[in-house]
Amino acid sequence: MSTYDEFIAAVKDIHRLQALQGHLGWDRETIMPEKGAAARADMLSWLAKEAHARLINPRLGAMLDALEAEAGLDVDQQANVREMRRSYEKAIKLPEQFVADYARSKSEAMMAWQDARAASDFSAFEPHLERLISMTKEKIAYLQVDGTPYDALLDEFEVGMKVEDYDPLFAGLRQRLVPLLDKIMAAKATTPDPPWPEGLVFAVADQTAFCTEVSEAMGFDFKAGRMDASTHPFSAGLWPGDTRFTTRYDRSEPFSCLYGVMHETGHALYEQGLASEHAYTPRGAAVSLGVHESQSRFWENQIGRTPAFWKVALPWYTKHFPDAPSWDAETLNRMANKVSTGFVRVEADEVTYNLHVMLRYEIEKQLFNGDLAVKDLPNAWNTMFQEWFGVEVPNDRLGCLQDIHWSMGAFGYFPTYTLGNLYAAQLLESMAEEFGDIDQLVETGDWSPLLNWLRPRIHAQGSKWSPSELIEQATGSAPSPEPFLRYVEAKYGQLYGL
Amino acid sequence: MSTYDEFIAAVKDIHRLQALQGHLGWDRETIMPEKGAAARADMLSWLAKEAHARLINPRLGAMLDALEAEAGLDVDQQANVREMRRSYEKAIKLPEQFVADYARSKSEAMMAWQDARAASDFSAFEPHLERLISMTKEKIAYLQVDGTPYDALLDEFEVGMKVEDYDPLFAGLRQRLVPLLDKIMAAKATTPDPPWPEGLVFAVADQTAFCTEVSEAMGFDFKAGRMDASTHPFSAGLWPGDTRFTTRYDRSEPFSCLYGVMHETGHALYEQGLASEHAYTPRGAAVSLGVHESQSRFWENQIGRTPAFWKVALPWYTKHFPDAPSWDAETLNRMANKVSTGFVRVEADEVTYNLHVMLRYEIEKQLFNGDLAVKDLPNAWNTMFQEWFGVEVPNDRLGCLQDIHWSMGAFGYFPTYTLGNLYAAQLLESMAEEFGDIDQLVETGDWSPLLNWLRPRIHAQGSKWSPSELIEQATGSAPSPEPFLRYVEAKYGQLYGL
Repeated sequence: MSTYDEFIAAVKDIHRLQALQGHLGWDRETIMPEKGAAARADMLSWLAKEAHARLINPRLGAMLDALEAEAGLDVDQQANVREMRRSYEKAIKLPEQFVADYARSKSEAMMAWQDARAASDFSAFEPHLERLISMTKEKIAYLQVDGTPYDALLDEFEVGMKVEDYDPLFAGLRQRLVPLLDKIMAAKATTPDPPWPEGLVFAVADQTAFCTEVSEAMGFDFKAGRMDASTHPFSAGLWPGDTRFTTRYDRSEPFSCLYGVMHETGHALYEQGLASEHAYTPRGAAVSLGVHESQSRFWENQIGRTPAFWKVALPWYTKHFPDAPSWDAETLNRMANKVSTGFVRVEADEVTYNLHVMLRYEIEKQLFNGDLAVKDLPNAWNTMFQEWFGVEVPNDRLGCLQDIHWSMGAFGYFPTYTLGNLYAAQLLESMAEEFGDIDQLVETGDWSPLLNWLRPRIHAQGSKWSPSELIEQATGSAPSPEPFLRYVEAKYGQLYGL
Repeated sequence: MSTYDEFIAAVKDIHRLQALQGHLGWDRETIMPEKGAAARADMLSWLAKEAHARLINPRLGAMLDALEAEAGLDVDQQANVREMRRSYEKAIKLPEQFVADYARSKSEAMMAWQDARAASDFSAFEPHLERLISMTKEKIAYLQVDGTPYDALLDEFEVGMKVEDYDPLFAGLRQRLVPLLDKIMAAKATTPDPPWPEGLVFAVADQTAFCTEVSEAMGFDFKAGRMDASTHPFSAGLWPGDTRFTTRYDRSEPFSCLYGVMHETGHALYEQGLASEHAYTPRGAAVSLGVHESQSRFWENQIGRTPAFWKVALPWYTKHFPDAPSWDAETLNRMANKVSTGFVRVEADEVTYNLHVMLRYEIEKQLFNGDLAVKDLPNAWNTMFQEWFGVEVPNDRLGCLQDIHWSMGAFGYFPTYTLGNLYAAQLLESMAEEFGDIDQLVETGDWSPLLNWLRPRIHAQGSKWSPSELIEQATGSAPSPEPFLRYVEAKYGQLYGL
């Protein structure tokens, strides 16, 4: 057996253990009986421990050394060596006791956060957040990554992205998004958004049938996957031939379910398009959170929240919701595209969404690179929100306690959401260069050219290249915020008659 | 860490890997998308390989040696050492290449059997069966178990049971069951069973609701488990707080679903009653197939197929099937207890069921201890069936091709079904000694005394004792066929007015 073959066998074992965690995680969120929670947590932690033990195995390090010195590896093999080197280095730098303590602190913090959020009581979460941030700083010190402390965290979620990349990107975005938002709010003051009628009922079974048609039209293969319900929608790649996503239902309107489905189907199409011959290796896995998010946001917003989409979806809508008001495609699209200065990121429109992300980025940067104290966090949040959104945050539940991420120690994660939006717009512009008017294409109802464009350029590439190399190869240009700004200004300019 | 603690950690790892196989198996049979089959088979085989590698680890053998020489182990610890010694010895005696070849031959045989059965063409299965039997003989030689070759197989499924135990047991049963069957058939000739009306429809949702009430009344905790649908009903213990069983639906009658649910709930109650503090060790696992089957048959037949049960279930039946004919409890019970000389074991009544089992036992005994050639198997089957059941087998699909077991290499498995029936009757007699008239107890609708009797005596004992020790401790007598014969003669004597 060659060193590379032995290496890949070890790599696959690690990824199998992770895939099993993914499967048990899916099951927990969808169908697990409630009393199974303790044994499930125990099994997940056992699988994580097993995977970690294999990852820090010195034999893996020795194989990486040998393979890095080898000349004959092809580009797929090089990608696997590069990605495993990254994972290996991170893993061996963290002492085992620290990993265990950190995991326990995170799960305690998550429970405290749930209660604190429900009670809108930041002080109940503060000591846990304090401890997580202090341990995360300890982790940064172990990792010894070049750059600022916060860079080490950003790199965890989108390789290669640092504060020096995000700062100008976000400043440029903010410079044009805040005035756009101001103009929209002014337009709304004179011509309010159409209201959603009260008392409408959209049965769960009808929403499921409607959304299944949409997901199928996007190209999701239901023979190689499932759609189920969960409290928070998510997508689980699992393994070849089995990709599962979830949605949730609001009986008073069909949009949460629909756009949840389009978003998660976008993620799931990426997973179904990965190269199965590279299963259980980095080469066969999605490259980054940012690129993953580009796939979900592309379908959810750039395809799904357009009049062209609604022209195609209207007959399905009418068929499955015969008792709903008989709106035309234009009206439905208008209903699905209201801009508002709401407080909650996950409910935000495309104009404000990235402002929500940037606010979190600025806070995290001050926590790790600056001197923001945890006790001052609510005030910092509320001040910035007032400045950017022009409204006052009424309580911490709608402010700094709204997201689960910090309670999970996922500092540095939020910016990938914005990257996803930017990548998606850039991909759309490239498609338009090839296909001409995308709206015309969408209106035909045959969306396979879009998927077939993404398949070889994004999905099948897995982690062959870095995220920015991938976007550059797919679009011919380095990642840039310009396509997104052009898109969002044109779209909302038209919607609000600016 | 003491040797015992190190040993238990290794034991738990093995059982966790097996529990994961159980979970993925449940998912495959209930909800897996069809294109997930190949990756699922691959993952299951990887888990099996991982578990096997840990089982044959020489360090486990060394720990077993050390622990067997240790004086201070309590009875729970001794049980774990005893059971792991048995598994270890079996595993290390089989060469790895043989294990791999045998697994492949079995999966090829299973595919060939499916086709052969569909076409009722024994010759298409014959070479595969020939090969499996020859490899099974090779396995017997590796195992070097005392006694006849067939004893080595019987011991795999019910520890301690040999031909010298089964032969007199089965002869005694046959001696009384064959004449009983003759008398019943004679009675049926003059007074036929009531026919099932054609054209009735029992909606799946109504059957689910009805059977859920029954399962809950039996004591199944739906917060610690699930009921789903699958082609073949089964029960999966999984792990603490999460036990799942399945059923199937026949829209023309409610009994397949109902008795499937009662049978699998019986298995599932055993799993829910295991001692969770011993999870992932033999001490915390069911002791044998025979004892497991006693739990399912107890609830399905001895409780479920009685007038007392139907008195309790009638209001539920009427509520969920308002359009069904308005039968009384007596009639419903009569419908659920028809004796027939059908050809198929899984559809058999309580009188003929054990004859089906014994027929397979006799065939297997002749294959491994005698000189029955595979090509003569259909003839041997049909001759014996004619003799015991008094009817001619029309084809091999209804004859020797009907069961999946042989295609899985599960020779020696069938007799455990009969043990289950015998143990169940013996447990019922013991309960009657404590509670008096069981029918009166069942009629109250509060069946918790039955479950609470089984919990400490059977369920919580796990594999602390051997199956026969367990039955003897629970009932005060060694396992015996007499309680079953008394039960079946009384019950069917009354039903058929003998």
